[in-house]
Amino acid sequence: MQMLDASAADFAENFDRVVNARRESADNVSRDVADILSRIRARGDEALADLTMKLDGHHFSSDEDWRVPAWRCERAYEELDGELRDALDLAAARIRSYHEAQKPGPRDYTDDIGMRLGHRWTPVDAAGVYVPGGRAAYPSSLLMNAIPARVAGVERLVAVTPTPKGEMNPLVLAAAHIAGIDEIWRVGGAQAIGALAYGTQRIAPVDVITGPGNAWVAEAKRQVFGTVGIDMIAGPSEILVIADDKNDPAWIAADLLSQAEHDPSSQSILITDSADFAAQVEDQVDVQAAMLATGKTARAAWDAHGAIITVASLDDAIPLANRLAAEHVELAVDDPEALFAKLRHAGSVFLGRMVPEAVGDYVAGPNHVLPTGRRARFASGLSVLDFMKRTSFIEAGPDALAAVGPAAIALAEAEGLPAHAQSIRLRLK
Amino acid sequence: MQMLDASAADFAENFDRVVNARRESADNVSRDVADILSRIRARGDEALADLTMKLDGHHFSSDEDWRVPAWRCERAYEELDGELRDALDLAAARIRSYHEAQKPGPRDYTDDIGMRLGHRWTPVDAAGVYVPGGRAAYPSSLLMNAIPARVAGVERLVAVTPTPKGEMNPLVLAAAHIAGIDEIWRVGGAQAIGALAYGTQRIAPVDVITGPGNAWVAEAKRQVFGTVGIDMIAGPSEILVIADDKNDPAWIAADLLSQAEHDPSSQSILITDSADFAAQVEDQVDVQAAMLATGKTARAAWDAHGAIITVASLDDAIPLANRLAAEHVELAVDDPEALFAKLRHAGSVFLGRMVPEAVGDYVAGPNHVLPTGRRARFASGLSVLDFMKRTSFIEAGPDALAAVGPAAIALAEAEGLPAHAQSIRLRLK
Repeated sequence: MQMLDASAADFAENFDRVVNARRESADNVSRDVADILSRIRARGDEALADLTMKLDGHHFSSDEDWRVPAWRCERAYEELDGELRDALDLAAARIRSYHEAQKPGPRDYTDDIGMRLGHRWTPVDAAGVYVPGGRAAYPSSLLMNAIPARVAGVERLVAVTPTPKGEMNPLVLAAAHIAGIDEIWRVGGAQAIGALAYGTQRIAPVDVITGPGNAWVAEAKRQVFGTVGIDMIAGPSEILVIADDKNDPAWIAADLLSQAEHDPSSQSILITDSADFAAQVEDQVDVQAAMLATGKTARAAWDAHGAIITVASLDDAIPLANRLAAEHVELAVDDPEALFAKLRHAGSVFLGRMVPEAVGDYVAGPNHVLPTGRRARFASGLSVLDFMKRTSFIEAGPDALAAVGPAAIALAEAEGLPAHAQSIRLRLK
Repeated sequence: MQMLDASAADFAENFDRVVNARRESADNVSRDVADILSRIRARGDEALADLTMKLDGHHFSSDEDWRVPAWRCERAYEELDGELRDALDLAAARIRSYHEAQKPGPRDYTDDIGMRLGHRWTPVDAAGVYVPGGRAAYPSSLLMNAIPARVAGVERLVAVTPTPKGEMNPLVLAAAHIAGIDEIWRVGGAQAIGALAYGTQRIAPVDVITGPGNAWVAEAKRQVFGTVGIDMIAGPSEILVIADDKNDPAWIAADLLSQAEHDPSSQSILITDSADFAAQVEDQVDVQAAMLATGKTARAAWDAHGAIITVASLDDAIPLANRLAAEHVELAVDDPEALFAKLRHAGSVFLGRMVPEAVGDYVAGPNHVLPTGRRARFASGLSVLDFMKRTSFIEAGPDALAAVGPAAIALAEAEGLPAHAQSIRLRLK
């Protein structure tokens, strides 16, 4: 963990180092991924079976080895502990409700020259959600990816998930039941992304692929981008907490650790206007980390990427926050609105002292798939828009055409496109 | 050109071939591009100067060789022929007006448990627009890329354009003046995309890069995606015209040729319910192509990729149109609304007989940067949204936290994330 003082002479340099630290895997996997994708394209299911045997130790003999039947998901849901089932149901209902209100509306208007203009939004036909196996197999993540697709009106919703040595995660199956996934295929890695993008004999292709994954999955998504739509490339999670000294240091320490426990590459940063408070939070992080089952990961992330920055005034935190463009920003201060008004770049903001980031991970409603690694400068969290597209339209009668047609002809001719000009000229006669 | 009859026994197979025809360059440029990008990253301006000398034959000696001064754009605008200047001004005003109305609004509401939820949209800080040199140096394209960025509220708007052997296009400079571009750098290709994404000594990095380009530019955009935001990967232009026999065959032929003249890889398809009309349009394409200055390109595109499909009823055109998911769709029929209601996938739709696609290219207002190559299945035209991002927010008091906190704790524990649970539990005490 780095302790930085914004008034120090070398602060700018040290802060730059925090902003530009490379926390993402720089594995050069692009050739391996290109090879896997071309194998899937050429040989479909055969290549998928070979790669799944080799990489996941899972062999396809029966249909059920390929695809999880719906009754298994339903049974997993029914067999869940009651409290957990209610929690998943509550999460799903709140996610659904937030995203329902997010559906974009059409536009349709006639302008001053009598030209009718507008747009219409429609869902994609089919979407695929990647669900990692192993450590990051989170049911909440399946809900956050699948529910917006369903709300958008996607007809065919497919999940792919690796089942190493055949092992399935019952929580993920239960979440698939709640989200109403239509097909779950037991494949993972770049090969699963290839199957979704290009289709195989068994798996029909989809139009959009979302969901988290390792470096191979991320690179495969990048390589199939353009054949299908994808969500943002995701990196390790991060949190920025801006807090004054009226907070309980234990609460803030827990918030910092809640990101740190995700992955050794996660980043947790506190900016505060009190050096005393900074020291208390630092102590609390040590105390709590020692007691956590995930302490080793949290400790590694905090030691390598954590930072506590003291500033003279909380207003000074804002330019730093805008540079960091963090995935999650907590404003644990008396007047969070005043700081929020000046914050330009953040994935999601938690206003006040009573909303730890973890509430947003599960049950608040807004999507927890958010831009990481400074990408909040240009990217947004996952939404129904990722599963929809906009078609613009134009309608004109002879008067509207007469009003703008000559200008279009002049431009077409200047650009050396005479057939463009001719298509208008013929109609103006 | 292929003439297909939807009632023929081999139609499905032949139509599949039209849908799946590869019209995009399959040049394997990814390694060349990766090399260029890494050179820009490592050596900045020095690499940019070397590559620009080598690839564009343009040498940087003075500052003006690097960057076009604003007065040159203003002068290019003033020296334009009056009719053309008015046409560009009209186009810009209409594009601005359409995109102004496209700006998304915030959401801010308190739900049934007293939790405040919502989102806010903010512009990116800086955007870069790629403007091709040579044949595709279209001022209209500069307006269509730059104006939505300006409307979104982007503070710094940068254009890059190659000036082979030092030659600049005055129409593009005039358009840059109208659009209010802040910086124009005389660089192109993958090296210009690298400079925009990573920054060099002279060129500060941007957050989003849009604009058309060749295979190198497209691949460079794909490779920097994630470091910056990009618009959709663009391929050759295409048009689908659905027309009955009440149209003038000359008008429809001109519309088909207006896409064909862009590039030998462009695609123009007519679907009609009249074999007679189909034959008349075919004749008219031949007659008009012979008279066009762009006839050679148009002819090549039409011969290689053009198609006329006859269907028993115009309703039968809709499933075909949805398969094609074309960039531009003209509905030249009595009741275009009825067909439009059933059309699921299209970039932009032109309703009725009086709006040739070329009107949309220049002066209608909606963006002419649209998804090509069946990408309207999942992608939208360029809009102000491409230059903005959404930040979600959550605010809760003790009651709202008490209502959902226990469910979040249950989920966090089930996912093996105890610090997440702890951050909520501490606040519930």
